[in-house]
Parts: sequence; structure tokens; C-alpha cells
Amino acid sequence: MTTTKKYVLGEEKIPKAWYNLASDLPSPPPAVLHPGTGQPIGPGDLAPLFPMAVIMQEVSTEKWVEIPEPVRDIYRMWRPSPLIRAERLEKVLDTPARIFFKYEGVSPAGSHKPNTAVAQAFYNKQEGVKRLTTETGAGQWGSSLAFAGSLFGLEVEVFMVKVSFEQKPYRRALMETYGAKCIPSPSNQTASGRAILEKTPNSTGSLGIAISEAVEVAAGRDDTKYSLGSVLNHVLLHQTVIGQEAQEQMAMAGFAPDIVIGCAGGGSNFSGLAFPFVGDKIRNKSKTRIMAVEPASCPTLTRGRYAYDFGDTGHLTPLVKMHTLGSTFVPSPIHAGGLRYHGMAPMVSHIKELGLIEARAYAQVECFAAAVQFARSEGIVPAPESSHAIKAAIDEALRCKQEGKAETILFNLSGHGHFDMGAYTAYFAGQLKDEPYDQGALDKALAELPKVAA
Amino acid sequence: MTTTKKYVLGEEKIPKAWYNLASDLPSPPPAVLHPGTGQPIGPGDLAPLFPMAVIMQEVSTEKWVEIPEPVRDIYRMWRPSPLIRAERLEKVLDTPARIFFKYEGVSPAGSHKPNTAVAQAFYNKQEGVKRLTTETGAGQWGSSLAFAGSLFGLEVEVFMVKVSFEQKPYRRALMETYGAKCIPSPSNQTASGRAILEKTPNSTGSLGIAISEAVEVAAGRDDTKYSLGSVLNHVLLHQTVIGQEAQEQMAMAGFAPDIVIGCAGGGSNFSGLAFPFVGDKIRNKSKTRIMAVEPASCPTLTRGRYAYDFGDTGHLTPLVKMHTLGSTFVPSPIHAGGLRYHGMAPMVSHIKELGLIEARAYAQVECFAAAVQFARSEGIVPAPESSHAIKAAIDEALRCKQEGKAETILFNLSGHGHFDMGAYTAYFAGQLKDEPYDQGALDKALAELPKVAA
Repeated sequence: MTTTKKYVLGEEKIPKAWYNLASDLPSPPPAVLHPGTGQPIGPGDLAPLFPMAVIMQEVSTEKWVEIPEPVRDIYRMWRPSPLIRAERLEKVLDTPARIFFKYEGVSPAGSHKPNTAVAQAFYNKQEGVKRLTTETGAGQWGSSLAFAGSLFGLEVEVFMVKVSFEQKPYRRALMETYGAKCIPSPSNQTASGRAILEKTPNSTGSLGIAISEAVEVAAGRDDTKYSLGSVLNHVLLHQTVIGQEAQEQMAMAGFAPDIVIGCAGGGSNFSGLAFPFVGDKIRNKSKTRIMAVEPASCPTLTRGRYAYDFGDTGHLTPLVKMHTLGSTFVPSPIHAGGLRYHGMAPMVSHIKELGLIEARAYAQVECFAAAVQFARSEGIVPAPESSHAIKAAIDEALRCKQEGKAETILFNLSGHGHFDMGAYTAYFAGQLKDEPYDQGALDKALAELPKVAA
Repeated sequence: MTTTKKYVLGEEKIPKAWYNLASDLPSPPPAVLHPGTGQPIGPGDLAPLFPMAVIMQEVSTEKWVEIPEPVRDIYRMWRPSPLIRAERLEKVLDTPARIFFKYEGVSPAGSHKPNTAVAQAFYNKQEGVKRLTTETGAGQWGSSLAFAGSLFGLEVEVFMVKVSFEQKPYRRALMETYGAKCIPSPSNQTASGRAILEKTPNSTGSLGIAISEAVEVAAGRDDTKYSLGSVLNHVLLHQTVIGQEAQEQMAMAGFAPDIVIGCAGGGSNFSGLAFPFVGDKIRNKSKTRIMAVEPASCPTLTRGRYAYDFGDTGHLTPLVKMHTLGSTFVPSPIHAGGLRYHGMAPMVSHIKELGLIEARAYAQVECFAAAVQFARSEGIVPAPESSHAIKAAIDEALRCKQEGKAETILFNLSGHGHFDMGAYTAYFAGQLKDEPYDQGALDKALAELPKVAA
């Protein structure tokens, strides 16, 4: 008989420090460059946007970064998150593989994003900041920062990609319930927004545009800083509580993963689960496969170029070396809004170049089919983003079946899909398309990459 | 400094038996009557609708009813649920009272409803049933039964009140994701539905009508039974895992509640938390206050008549003695759809008559204000139903402040509000009304109560 195997840790097992992959890397990632001078930037260049504690984490090479007690205390609301063996799914697939998943949907905002939102809100509060600006696509990040802001008494202003603002009024309502202000982007509140609206009055927006607006507002106000939900080193660092807990829970279960899987847009939930395992892989020279899964319509790691690029459309950010489709590339309107970013976290890009991880891309419809199969066997309806990790886990389990191998697969279920049911409705109605990317548009965006000396 | 105090039990603490309040009552509740004969019904009368195991639970007076291991095994997916001290809310209210809440929103369907859905699906599966029919209002119950059905391989057909079917497409999508069929009610698939549509082609439906349709379909098919999400004794019985866990967790916290609070529509989440405490109150002759909170627009316990009535509009159900507004009463379209039922669980009504519990009614807008205050301090966005319990807890905490008393308040947070964000949007836009009930309509519905010899 199938039984529920849920591995739960006591709250004393919430990690006391974040794990910094930079400490274990055989070579450091390329420097971040100033777009004007082409020279490496220093902490001072970032000070208008981020609190100093966060900037120091961004460049730290210490192995462990202590988690402040007030942050751990809020983690306690939902952490440690459960690790569950998907034995009912294994049975449906009739596979000898063991499938485990770490479930981050138990947070109040429904995803892994509060792991860093709480930390960022804490450091900003500590340094006297009154207001945070940020951008959001589908809304998981915006609602997580709104949640964190409400707990620390910080004002939060979220620039939400206009198409999502209109299509997903419930995520906006969630942000407002937490007391945040939600502005459709492009807006006329910033020069970046007005420039876009002048050229394209009906622009539906993009993450790159929304980032420009949020950065511009933060840079222009003394009491305001900017907060980013993925991509940067400190964000990935904060997410490593996921993988540290998972390592402890896999030990409880008595299995070490042969494959570790996460979906990847900017890279934060993937890194959160994977980085502690990547560190082990480096130190132990193990053969653990570590896989980032992205949408075929926004195939940064599998089809992008590893090059210096801007993080935003308005070109207000520094230049980072990453797998990119070009900052002017606009991904198709798939429902996994959190995966629609033109770039990839520099640290994830770097370890891909080092051969430490692999990447795979899936189309939208096959991911929804995997999500429904998962919901019907494991009871949890996944976020469209997370369904990419599920699809990869299922495919690997089916490969194990074919090869007669009892491998152990671990994936990150980064969030639930309760705010994405409109996408499921469209799937059941047969209205979802695979939304492949436009090769011509990609070639054009790549041709517009900034010229940087090697 | 405020700290997070979350009381977590290991899975070995999931109760092994449900607690049956009937065993401790000073007098039994009035008999259930056959509508044709006016005589008490026997198990055989219910056999077309329910599996025999459930019927025997309905009339059991045993103190403990063993929970089958396969049911406990599925409970393990999310149980034991956490008990949390709302210390941040206490601080905002500046009250000497201690506020605790039991959080049932951690289930895959987001509410307490799976506690009984899983049990009912198990017993039906065991007795060879292939298909379950049920009704749902806002959709919490329908999606919970869909979830349970998917795990046991049962087909599930949900008659959803038409106005909710149209207003809440996301709950419907959740049911379909779990593989259930969702039909707007009144439908033309049943005689009950056709009768309503003939008289009122544009009927937006009601729970009473949807029950008639689901019962009619189950009664007419050999392989199909009916499943109810509240009101009946066996449903309340299954929910007592909530209160049993809460008792253990309150002991961990070192406080005994002076006041136990639950919102009440049909009565199931209220009973789930409260019944174990009511049993203690009877046995120990304690002064614990136990409070059911209902919407002012559907004030069953506070304004209804204690009388025999039908459970449905089509008058297909037996007669039960309960606080009722009359089976033809149509409550205002408030957003707490789960509280819009014309009657109250007979067992809850009975202990109200015995003076063991008290009742209170709140209007819609003040409940949303309480919900927002709670979300901003405790991080969890409550279901509109649960907000009634929060409002009562806040009012009691403010009374404690006025009286300078450090009482301990415990309430049931029966579900999260992630599927109800449209209601929050309306609240923030100032579009919510209090929707008081129509005294004339109530008088008329009460005048139509069935005549039953005392």
C-alpha cells in the first residue's frame, strides 16, 4: 500500500546561516561592470539601491552568512518546509525511481519568495529605509515583498507588468491586502515608463521595463531602496535554506539524490534547492546531476548567449555576465510568468559554464499535463513555474523505468497554483499554446547586446 | 520583542479516533424524522444515500470512533495542522489577552473540509461505490471532495450554486484539476433542477437547491452515493481532529482557553474545534465560553427558529430539528459563501439549546476589516468565512483590554482566502455592503416550516 511519507523538521532545524556557493567555486564569477566606464563596480555604486548589509553579501566569499534572529523568527511561521516522497506519483508512473519534492508553497504568500523578501526587508529596516520599490511579473515576488514589508512596517511599491496587472487582479489584491501599492507598468510615474509609453502607448509591459521603473524611483528618493526577487547573489544566498533543510530531510529518508531539479526563470528557487548540493558535488567530486528547467519560450540557459548584458530594458542597471536572450527580447505570454526573464542569475550561468549543472527546456502544454498528473496523485496543485520541474522529474522517472534503474530524484515544488487557476481553465479548454520564441526577434535582441571588452 | 510561537506536533500525534460529543451530552438530540410519516428514520432509510459505515457513525453514541489507517495516512499530508499564537496581533491591539489560532488552511484544498472528505471517500470506496455527488456554494467543500475522490479513484460530480459557478471560476478549475465534474445548479439534469428552472429560468441557485439535485442523482443510481460537507453528525465527528490536536497544542503552550471561537455556517469547522472543549466543559463543569459566529445576513443561531425543517429546498431530505431560517429562505449574496445555509447542524443547535455554547452575528464589512488587520499582522490572508471568527476574537481581546483581563482566546482559522481575493478587491474599492437579511422574507420562510407533531 502507498503511504504518505512526509519528512518534517522541528523549528530548531531552521538553518542558522545561509550557504554561500561562492566559497566553494573553483573560479569566481566574472565581475559586475559599470555600464558607463566598463570597469568593475564597487559597493558605493550600489549604495543608492541596496542597504550595505545586502551589498556586502553580494560580494561575500565567506562560506556561511549568519541569518539574523528576527529573520529566523519569521521563517518560523512556515519553516522548515516539508519534504515529501511522491510515492503515489511513482505508482502511477510505475517507475523504480524514488521521487521526492521539497514543498515551498506552505509560506503565507504561497511560494519560496518570502525566504529572501523577509531578509531584505529586515536589512532595509535596520538601515533606516522607509520604502521599498520592486517589480513583479505574475505577482509571486510582489506579494512576498508586500508580506515582508507589512511585518517590518515598510511601505512597498510594486511595479507590476501591465498585462499581468490586468490578467491577475487577485495577485494585486493580495499585495494590497498586505498594504502594498501596486502600479501597472509601464506607468507615467517614471521617465523610463514615460519613454516606453511615448513610443508604444499600448505597451503591455515586461519585467525589464518594470525593473527600470522600480530602480529609477528608488535611486531618486533618499528614504527608498530597491529590492530584487531573483538573479543577484544575495537573493540566491537567502534561498539556500531550502537546500540545507532538504539535505537534512533526505538523510532522514535514507536516500541521497542522484538528480536535483528546479525550474529556473531568474534562478532563485533552483539555486535555493541546488546550491548546497552543488557545493557537495564540488567538494566530493560526486556525479550528482543537477538540472535547471526553463520554458522553451524563454530558453535562456539552453539558447541564450553567455555575455555581458543589462538586467533591465531601460539600461539603468550594471552589466552582468549571464546567459541572456538580450535585454530587448520580449518572451511569449506563457502562464509561467515567473520564468519570463531575458537573463539568468550570473552565478547559475557561471556554474553552467563550469559544467556543474545541466539545463533543459520544456513547452507550456506538456508542463500543464505534468502538473495535472501531479495534482491528481499528490493532491497539491502546482504553480505553472513549478510544473517545469515536475515535468523533468516525471521524464527522468520514466527514463529510470526504461533503464530499470532505481534512481533518487529530488525536485523543488516552489509554489502552489491557487492564484493561477485561470491558466488551468485555459488548459482544460484546450486554449493553451506552446508559444515558441521568435528566432528573428532573438537574433535581433542578441545583436543589440552591449559591447564590452572581454 | 514579538516572536513567532508556532506549536507543531509530530505526525504520531494525529488523533487515532474521532471524538463523539453525543457520548457526553446530558440529553440526546431530537430524532431525525421521515418527512412522509413523521416517524423517526432508521439506517435503512439513509442507505440509498450514504455508505453503512457513515450511517452507523451518524447515530453512534460511542465516545471514540477509530480513524481507519488509510484516512490517517492521507491526513498525514498536512496534519497535524499548526497552532499559532497571534502575538503580533495582540501587540497591535495592545491587549493583555492571549490570542491563539488553529490553522486549517494548510490542507491541499486550503480549508478544514478535507478532514471529512477523505473519511467519506474512504468509506464509500470500501463499500464499492463508484461515484459521489455533492453540492457546493463558494467551492471549498466541492474542491475538498474532488481532492479526496482523486486519491481514492472515485468519480465526483459537484452541483455548484450557479451564481458562484459564474463568479468563482477558479474554484471550479480547482475541482476540474482534481478530475471532478462541476455542474451549475439549478441544472436541467435533475427533476429538482428542472422544476426550479421552469418557475425561475434565471435562478442563480442556492445551497438548498444544489443539495436537492445532488441527492436526487445519488438516489437514482446504484453505483452512486451522496456526500455532505457539513450539518450531519458524522461530518462534525470527522472534524474533531482539529479540537483534539488543539487541546494538545494548548497544553504545550501552557494555557487553557477561556474562550473558544469558530465561524458557523452548517457548523462543521466550529464543531471540529469546539466539540472536544464542549465535552470537557460538560465533564468538568467548567466555565469555558464557546462561541459560534455567524453572518448577520444569515443569522441562523441568533435569529432562526429551533424547529424541524428540511435540509434542502426540494424537500428530498429527512426532517431535522435545528435552528433554521426556513428552507425557502435565500440569504443575501455575501462573500462568505460557506456560511450561507438556512439551517445549522442539529448537534450544534441542540447544545445551543442546552446553554453549552453562545452565538453572535457580525456584518460583512466589519469582518473584512478584521481580516485585513489579521493579514497585516500575522501574514495569513483568511477566507471570508474565517474572518467572522477573527472579528469575534479581536472584539473579545479588546474587551479584555478594557477590563484589564489576561484571558486566553482560541479561534479556528478554517481556511485561507487565496480563492476569495475578488472579495478583498471589492472591499478595498468600498463596494462591499453589509447585506442585512430581509425580515419579510424571513417571516415568510418561517411561516412555511413543515408542521411536525412535537
